[in-house]
Amino acid sequence: MKPTVWLIGAGPGDPELLTLKAVKALGQADVVLVDDLVNPQVLDYCPQARLVYVGKRGGCRSTPQAFIQRLMLRYARQGLRVARLKGGDPCIFGRGGEEALWLGSHGVACEIVNGITAGLAAATSCGIPLTHRGMAQGVTLITAHSQDGTTPDWAGLARSRTTLVVYMGVAKLQDMSSQLLAAGMAADTPVAMIERASLSDQRECRSTLAAMACDAAAFGLRSPAVLVIGDVAACQMYGAADAPMPHLSEPELRRSA
Amino acid sequence: MKPTVWLIGAGPGDPELLTLKAVKALGQADVVLVDDLVNPQVLDYCPQARLVYVGKRGGCRSTPQAFIQRLMLRYARQGLRVARLKGGDPCIFGRGGEEALWLGSHGVACEIVNGITAGLAAATSCGIPLTHRGMAQGVTLITAHSQDGTTPDWAGLARSRTTLVVYMGVAKLQDMSSQLLAAGMAADTPVAMIERASLSDQRECRSTLAAMACDAAAFGLRSPAVLVIGDVAACQMYGAADAPMPHLSEPELRRSA
Repeated sequence: MKPTVWLIGAGPGDPELLTLKAVKALGQADVVLVDDLVNPQVLDYCPQARLVYVGKRGGCRSTPQAFIQRLMLRYARQGLRVARLKGGDPCIFGRGGEEALWLGSHGVACEIVNGITAGLAAATSCGIPLTHRGMAQGVTLITAHSQDGTTPDWAGLARSRTTLVVYMGVAKLQDMSSQLLAAGMAADTPVAMIERASLSDQRECRSTLAAMACDAAAFGLRSPAVLVIGDVAACQMYGAADAPMPHLSEPELRRSA
Repeated sequence: MKPTVWLIGAGPGDPELLTLKAVKALGQADVVLVDDLVNPQVLDYCPQARLVYVGKRGGCRSTPQAFIQRLMLRYARQGLRVARLKGGDPCIFGRGGEEALWLGSHGVACEIVNGITAGLAAATSCGIPLTHRGMAQGVTLITAHSQDGTTPDWAGLARSRTTLVVYMGVAKLQDMSSQLLAAGMAADTPVAMIERASLSDQRECRSTLAAMACDAAAFGLRSPAVLVIGDVAACQMYGAADAPMPHLSEPELRRSA
């Protein structure tokens, strides 16, 4: 099977965060199926293509998944080069796997083009180092809006000592807060809530695990937003005068080198 | 403070996985400090720049971190546009936060340019959908080679129901296997070990939690490699005839849409 469909990660919003591979594929596409979390400026890279908008936002009335998949299949069978453009990365809560497998089972191969996932870009753009040494053992990307009705194991996550990055969590702030507090996570655990990551109108609200639902309401936090929960969420790595992040002294740096 | 240093994620290896932003910054740099996990082909985007190689591989003799930081500072103070090029993403086990903060504390601002992290590219390039619905609640990126001597909470991770992606784990396979088995993870949990992710000589070895250390030895697995642990590690989403991944039927798709 020769690839005839690209599943392309459009990144978090800033068109400059597209990969070269994504730009190349977009430039060759005959038809582009555009997700509603994609920045319209990204479409400047496929002026030759026919655009089909197939938004599918959680909880809203939108194009059914099965219809989108059949549309890709139909175009591919017509011999067109099809690009499916998704926000972030196709395989981080993007259903890339489902679509790739479904297409494969219908005789159409596809190629997945990675994108910068929103959680990573959100943290970086507001100065949070997700895996900062001494503060986190790693980072866990989860979604609060589970597609199969199951919920994350909050107790396991609370003790994992990883920074938690939550996608699609705006509607479940109070629930997450309660669950993580019940699992033993400290009430003053820092939280950062980042709206429209990497875009010029990005907004961020810093809070704590106990206060995040109230603070988000006061702030007027709206989807799409990303939450960062963990000690690193109090950091500001871009040299702010009042940076709360303890930095390593020269002797410590020498020891660690 | 005007940014004079870019900390740039060079991605996992394939130069096409660079972002447009990274290419733009590289093209403007006067001097580029190059990490040893960076594909030399990436340097085609900065032919004008002076290159300084500052490899720093875990366990090997290499340039001390403090020296690298002072070098960046010196160049920046000379008025040069400095790019620090790191494999993957600067803030996923890349010390981007430490470097940004250290520079800030010395009066030099910097900008971090995200890159595709190796774990994500490794999974995608061998057909593993990291957050596949019904198989994983999310994904956790961790390093087995902790820089501060602490170890991950394997018990918490084992029950988190997220796919585990382990960086720098080749030397600790037996230890990880024992810890996760002791934490109650099933012996037949699928594992994929991916060497040189996204490059033309990428190799992958599929195994299980119980057998991964033996299988890696027989395979001759070498660093740098990424491990994917969890049900999704048995998947092959690119339409292989013997794909072990259960795909959703049309009625299921309709229900979920």
